Amino acid sequence: MPPKDVPIKPPTATSAAPTPQNTFVPSTLAALGRPDVPATIAEGDGETIDVLGVSKALDTLALGGLAGVEDLPLPVRRRVEGLKGVHVEFTKLETQYRKELYELNRKYSELYTPIFERRAAIIAGRAEPTEEEISIGESKTLEDDPDAEPLPKGDASADADKAEEDIKGVPKFWVTALKNHLDIAELITDRDEEALAYLRDVRLEYLPSSTPGYKLSFHFTPNEFFTNDVLTKTYIYEDEVDFAGDYVYSSAEGTTINWKEDKDLTKTFEVRKQRNKNTNRTRIIKRAQSTPSFFDFFAPPAPLSIDQIESHGMTEEQLEEHENRLELDYQVGEDLKDKIIPRAIDFFTGKVLDYEGDSIMSDEEDEDEEGQWEQMSAGGL
Amino acid sequence: MPPKDVPIKPPTATSAAPTPQNTFVPSTLAALGRPDVPATIAEGDGETIDVLGVSKALDTLALGGLAGVEDLPLPVRRRVEGLKGVHVEFTKLETQYRKELYELNRKYSELYTPIFERRAAIIAGRAEPTEEEISIGESKTLEDDPDAEPLPKGDASADADKAEEDIKGVPKFWVTALKNHLDIAELITDRDEEALAYLRDVRLEYLPSSTPGYKLSFHFTPNEFFTNDVLTKTYIYEDEVDFAGDYVYSSAEGTTINWKEDKDLTKTFEVRKQRNKNTNRTRIIKRAQSTPSFFDFFAPPAPLSIDQIESHGMTEEQLEEHENRLELDYQVGEDLKDKIIPRAIDFFTGKVLDYEGDSIMSDEEDEDEEGQWEQMSAGGL
Repeated sequence: MPPKDVPIKPPTATSAAPTPQNTFVPSTLAALGRPDVPATIAEGDGETIDVLGVSKALDTLALGGLAGVEDLPLPVRRRVEGLKGVHVEFTKLETQYRKELYELNRKYSELYTPIFERRAAIIAGRAEPTEEEISIGESKTLEDDPDAEPLPKGDASADADKAEEDIKGVPKFWVTALKNHLDIAELITDRDEEALAYLRDVRLEYLPSSTPGYKLSFHFTPNEFFTNDVLTKTYIYEDEVDFAGDYVYSSAEGTTINWKEDKDLTKTFEVRKQRNKNTNRTRIIKRAQSTPSFFDFFAPPAPLSIDQIESHGMTEEQLEEHENRLELDYQVGEDLKDKIIPRAIDFFTGKVLDYEGDSIMSDEEDEDEEGQWEQMSAGGL
Repeated sequence: MPPKDVPIKPPTATSAAPTPQNTFVPSTLAALGRPDVPATIAEGDGETIDVLGVSKALDTLALGGLAGVEDLPLPVRRRVEGLKGVHVEFTKLETQYRKELYELNRKYSELYTPIFERRAAIIAGRAEPTEEEISIGESKTLEDDPDAEPLPKGDASADADKAEEDIKGVPKFWVTALKNHLDIAELITDRDEEALAYLRDVRLEYLPSSTPGYKLSFHFTPNEFFTNDVLTKTYIYEDEVDFAGDYVYSSAEGTTINWKEDKDLTKTFEVRKQRNKNTNRTRIIKRAQSTPSFFDFFAPPAPLSIDQIESHGMTEEQLEEHENRLELDYQVGEDLKDKIIPRAIDFFTGKVLDYEGDSIMSDEEDEDEEGQWEQMSAGGL
């Protein structure tokens, strides 16, 4: 066969491309856009290569050009059904694997607890770091940046002025850490930031394996915004892992926030005077309107069933928006669990921002890439 | 404080936005674009709220507006260094966790082996599925699609014609599965497809935990393209997990392919006649040129050290391209390991394409979204 140039890219699309989000209802094989698999592996010149003895088999075996498995020769179809049966055995073992993995995560989550307690105590000012902790920290700092300015030697308290001595712990630790997570930073308004300055700890707890999932607890010091000490967000997974062997987010629940008067950060209030034409008296009307806030995190969107989607008569756009909100809610939870809680100090110092996007940012962020990088550069120096 | 509308989106960027890929050399805090963290949490009206007792601390604690941790009051800086020291304790435990996780993966990889052997035997035609396997498979098919056409009842061999009876196993199983992975489909040329029709199995093996990593083995039946029976690709992880607690891809190695004459799919050959003006004799000159091929997977790009980057004098664009190639190479390996090998049957039937992008596609795919969806629609019906 004469060598020829084979372009890697297929020709440009002529029909509208599906978007990654709009596949709510599993489509049929036939309706789905498919990678280009020609119906035979013969090329233009009419030559049919007979790889496996029977060219008819080859004609029908390239699924891409056909409606599906139904068109395979019967003996092959039986084998394909058999392979599906074999795969069921695999998924049984995989479910067992997921359970062991969940237990492993739970075990380590508990092993980490004393470390996170120590961290919380230093942040809150209930404890001071030991000289050893400080010196280990300093050597890490130098590892990361050999030019880092060392802490002044000698008795620290001698140099510090009285005001500095009065500072307890590390103020604004958590709000700073959260603001260095690019997705979360986008959710935090200036007003939210004032309330989040009172956030003194964020903790993770795995649920018992009978109801797999996890709970995030946000601990606050007393503040003028709400009366709750702790706000929690609980993510529940489905009992069964999904088709890809991963836990599926089934639902999420958050604490109802007891806002103090006029302090609800998820609302804006419009105040208007209204005069009664008959009595000529004026009254004041306050109208609340929803406004986006980080604290919406505690009132997560509910997943929609296919029935609900149909009965709501939602447009594709509305569906996509709802799905994006669910995705983001889920991803923020996962990132708090897997990234921010474990390495809060690196989020606080901004060390995370020194590393490549992929290792730090959520998988979903690329979807919102434009907004993402606008955000980054808007905050640049 | 009067309520006001707080926009979620920061103002549009005025400077060029960094791209997600170009952060090879860790940047300094100051050089990095940062989410917008105002230097104080006071807003326009000059009011400074005194959340934690000392407004000076607040002024300096919003890291985003400052050069970094160095500007914090000394007592706070000491606590931050202490928190880094505490974090070292966490990373020790986390390394232990990663090791246990690796062992768990290895254990299950071995438990899966008999299932994958069985699958390989059916695909190769060395074994036929049992009636039970077929019937379990059929009930799965009906679960997924209640309208699926059932296999004809009765003795299958009675209905099948002779040609169909001669088909061994499931021809083109693996090439079809690979082509239903959208990233990999883009790498497979028409010529590659002919060679990949001989691919009869793909297997995963974890390396001993002393040198963490994994090996993918591609088993081929004898073919006219190359003499190797097995092509392998081995991914080695760094000894230490990265800053985010994940294994880091250190290097990859592939089998050298022994191409048969003129069959090298990674090359195109240009044949030219050349006449010697003195002797008037012609000779044939063959010039090989590299051409993209799936089989480049077995000659992976080498990671570049910072020294190499500097000495090569590569442009930002070249660096980015190299980094993208590394990323893709790594991601294809991960997807083969985590998705395609475990659920090859679902890739073969295209079931994976019925599900939402995120659960199936690699994390990196969004970056190449345009090409991705072009591909999908170009292959549509």
